[in-house]
Amino acid sequence: MKKIEGGVTAARGFRAIGIAAGIKKDKKDMAMLYSQVPCRAAGTFTTNIVKAAPVKWDQEIVYHQKTAQAVVMNSGVANACTGAEGYGYCLETAKTAADLLGIQANQVLTASTGVIGRQLPMDLIRQGISTMVPLLSDTAAAGTLAAEAIMTTDTVKKEIAVSVELGGKTVTIGGMSKGAGMIHPNMCTMLAFVTTDAAISQELLQRALSADVKDTYNMISVDGDTSTNDTCLLLANGLAGNPEITEENEDYRTFAAALNYVNTWLAKHMAADGEGATALFEVKVVGAKSKEQAVTLSKSIVTSSLVKAAIYGHDANWGRILCAMGYSGAKFDPEQVDLYFESRAGRIKIIENGVDTGYSEEEATKILSEKEVTAIADVKMGEAAATAWGCDLTHEYVSINADYRS
Amino acid sequence: MKKIEGGVTAARGFRAIGIAAGIKKDKKDMAMLYSQVPCRAAGTFTTNIVKAAPVKWDQEIVYHQKTAQAVVMNSGVANACTGAEGYGYCLETAKTAADLLGIQANQVLTASTGVIGRQLPMDLIRQGISTMVPLLSDTAAAGTLAAEAIMTTDTVKKEIAVSVELGGKTVTIGGMSKGAGMIHPNMCTMLAFVTTDAAISQELLQRALSADVKDTYNMISVDGDTSTNDTCLLLANGLAGNPEITEENEDYRTFAAALNYVNTWLAKHMAADGEGATALFEVKVVGAKSKEQAVTLSKSIVTSSLVKAAIYGHDANWGRILCAMGYSGAKFDPEQVDLYFESRAGRIKIIENGVDTGYSEEEATKILSEKEVTAIADVKMGEAAATAWGCDLTHEYVSINADYRS
Repeated sequence: MKKIEGGVTAARGFRAIGIAAGIKKDKKDMAMLYSQVPCRAAGTFTTNIVKAAPVKWDQEIVYHQKTAQAVVMNSGVANACTGAEGYGYCLETAKTAADLLGIQANQVLTASTGVIGRQLPMDLIRQGISTMVPLLSDTAAAGTLAAEAIMTTDTVKKEIAVSVELGGKTVTIGGMSKGAGMIHPNMCTMLAFVTTDAAISQELLQRALSADVKDTYNMISVDGDTSTNDTCLLLANGLAGNPEITEENEDYRTFAAALNYVNTWLAKHMAADGEGATALFEVKVVGAKSKEQAVTLSKSIVTSSLVKAAIYGHDANWGRILCAMGYSGAKFDPEQVDLYFESRAGRIKIIENGVDTGYSEEEATKILSEKEVTAIADVKMGEAAATAWGCDLTHEYVSINADYRS
Repeated sequence: MKKIEGGVTAARGFRAIGIAAGIKKDKKDMAMLYSQVPCRAAGTFTTNIVKAAPVKWDQEIVYHQKTAQAVVMNSGVANACTGAEGYGYCLETAKTAADLLGIQANQVLTASTGVIGRQLPMDLIRQGISTMVPLLSDTAAAGTLAAEAIMTTDTVKKEIAVSVELGGKTVTIGGMSKGAGMIHPNMCTMLAFVTTDAAISQELLQRALSADVKDTYNMISVDGDTSTNDTCLLLANGLAGNPEITEENEDYRTFAAALNYVNTWLAKHMAADGEGATALFEVKVVGAKSKEQAVTLSKSIVTSSLVKAAIYGHDANWGRILCAMGYSGAKFDPEQVDLYFESRAGRIKIIENGVDTGYSEEEATKILSEKEVTAIADVKMGEAAATAWGCDLTHEYVSINADYRS
C-alpha cells in the first residue's frame, strides 16, 4: 500500500468541487462529488433516533437501491429537525443535481452539517448546484475545494488517498471528512466520503465498511454528543479494472486494509481537530478479556470531561482515568491495572497494580505537553485490545459552543 | 413541614465541628459528626467499581452492622486508589476517633474527598481528630464549620434542616453536602450527610433513603463523571421520642417527604454550585411513557456538553437538546416533541411537534439569562415525568480542571 496525493478525486473517474454558495458568510459551504459511471454505494449512519433529513434520504438509497453516482453536500445548515419540509428539500436538491447531470434523482446522495432546526435556503442551494456542475473536475485541487467546503468549526481540511495493487491493477481509495463538534459517532462519524475505483460487489463493499467503522470512526469522541447527521459514504465505481472482488479473498483483505488506513487517518484527524483541541489524545486498553471490554474502557476514558481537561493542563491526573474506567460498566480489578503515558517525548509508567509508581511529575508533564499523547491501560485479563481517539477539553471548546449560532 | 435554621446539628443529640488540620493550605479540611447515642445508619454509595477506601469501610458498617455513632470526614485527599495501605488508614482513623470518644471503632464512619491516588497524611489526621473531639458542639455554627470543611471546589457551603410532627413530637432532619466536580452520581452523590432524631427502624430508614436518592442525588450531573467516593449517609438517633416508625404508615410518608425535601435541596444546590457554573440548569421531561424513559431523557439532556455550553451562552440552541434526547437510548417520536424554556423571566415555547415555533430569539435569550433556567420537554406518550439538575459548561470549569492538583 502506498500513500499518494489527493483525496476524493484520487480514484479514477471521480470529480468534485467546492464553492461559496452564500449559506455561510464569506466561506465555502457547498460541495459536489460525481463519478463518471454509476457506483456501488455503501454507507453507515448515525444511530441517533433524531435523524437529519439527508440521513433518511441516503439510507433509502444505500439500503435499498445500493447504487449512486453523485453526492451534494452543504455546511452551515444541518437540515435536521426540519420535518417533511426538510425531507422534501433533499428530494429537490437531488432532482436539481440529477437534471443537470443527466442522471436519475435517486442516484444523488445528499449530506448536510451545521445548525440543527433551520430549513435549507433552497434558492442558494439550487443556485449553488447550477454553479458547481460545470466546475466539477478530477484534479486534486478540486477534491481539496470539496474537503474545505464541508468544514464547520474544523480548522484544517481532512483528505487522504492510498493505492494498492489488486490483480495486477492499481486500485485507489481516497477520502475526505469533517468533524470538530457533536462528535461521538455511533455507526459512523459526522461526514466522511470515501471513493474508490475498485471493482467490488456491493455486498462486500458494505461489509468492509461496516466492519471498519467500528475500529475507526466509532472509536473517536470530541464531546460525547452523537450527532443527528453522522454519515459515512463509500462509493466504488470499478474503473480500476481489477478482477471484481466477490468473496473474502486476499484481494478483499488488501482492499479492507487500505480502507482501514484511510478511515483511521480521517478518524484520527477529526479527533485531533476537535473543537478547541490543542492535542490528539489516544487511549489504548490492552490485556483485556474481550474486544468489547477494551472498547468500553477506552471510550469511557477518552470521553471523560475531567480526563480531557487534565490532558489540556498537561497534568498526569491518573485518578481520573481509573475513575472513568470504573464507571464505564466494564468489569475489571482496579488493583491489577498498570497505566502508562507516552508521546514523542518518551514513555512513563504511572501506576502499577492500581497504585502510584512514584513517577516523576516533571517527566510526566513533559510527555503530556506534546501535540499527540497516548494513555495505555493494561488490565491484565487477556489478549484483547482497543484504541480510541479524542482530544483535550479547552477554554476554546466552551467559547465555540457557548455561542455557535451567532 | 417547616424549614428551620441549621444543618447536621439541627436534630437533637448531634454534635459537629470543622477545622483546618493542615491537609490543604490555609483552608478547613477536616470535620466530625457525633451523636450522643448510637444511631441507626443508612447509606448509599457509588456504583463505580473503583471504590475509595472509606466507601468500602462505610459499606461494611452500613450493610452489616447498620448502626454508627460518629463520622470523620476530610477534604483534600480522596483516599481512592490507595490499596491496602489506604484501607488501613480508614481503620486507624476510626480507631483514633473511637478511643477519644469512648466508643468502638466500628461505630465510626469515614468519608474523604479530594485528589485520587494520594495516601492520607495520617499524622495530620490523628492530630486533627484530637483537636476536634473536645470542640464537638451542638450549635448551628459548629454544623456550619463542618459543612465548610468538606468543601473542595465548591464555592458555597450546603446545609439545610426541616422539622415535621410525628405522633405529637417534633422530628428534625438536617443535612449537609459537597459537590462541585466529578459529579454524576449513581446511587448517591459525592458526600452528603443527613441526620435526624426520628425514631425509625433501620430497615425503613434505608428504604426511605434508597428510594429517595433515585429522585434527588442520582438526578444531578456536573460533568458526567461518576466519582469513586460518592457517599450519602443518613443517621437516625431516635431522640425526638416519636413512636418508632416500623411500617410504611402515615408517619413514614411524612418522614420520607421531609427527607425528600432535604435531599432535593442539597442535590439542587450541588448542581447549581457545579465547578465553574453560572446557572442551575433544570430539565423536566413530561408526558413520558414510563418513569425510566423520563429519567433517561432528562439525564441525557442535562449531561450533554453541547447543551450545557449553549446554556452558558444563553443560546436557545434547541437542536442540541433534541439531539441529546435522540442518542439517549430512549425511544420516542422526535416529530411529537414540544419544548419550552422557563425561568423567572418567563416561559416560551421553542418547538412544537419537533419543529421551530418561530419564537423570538431575544425573548428566549432573556429567559436563559437567569441564574436558574428550566427546559421542559413533552414527549406526549403518557403520564410519567422526571426532573434532572445540572449546570452550564463554562471557561471556569476548564480552568479548574486543567490544573486541579496544583
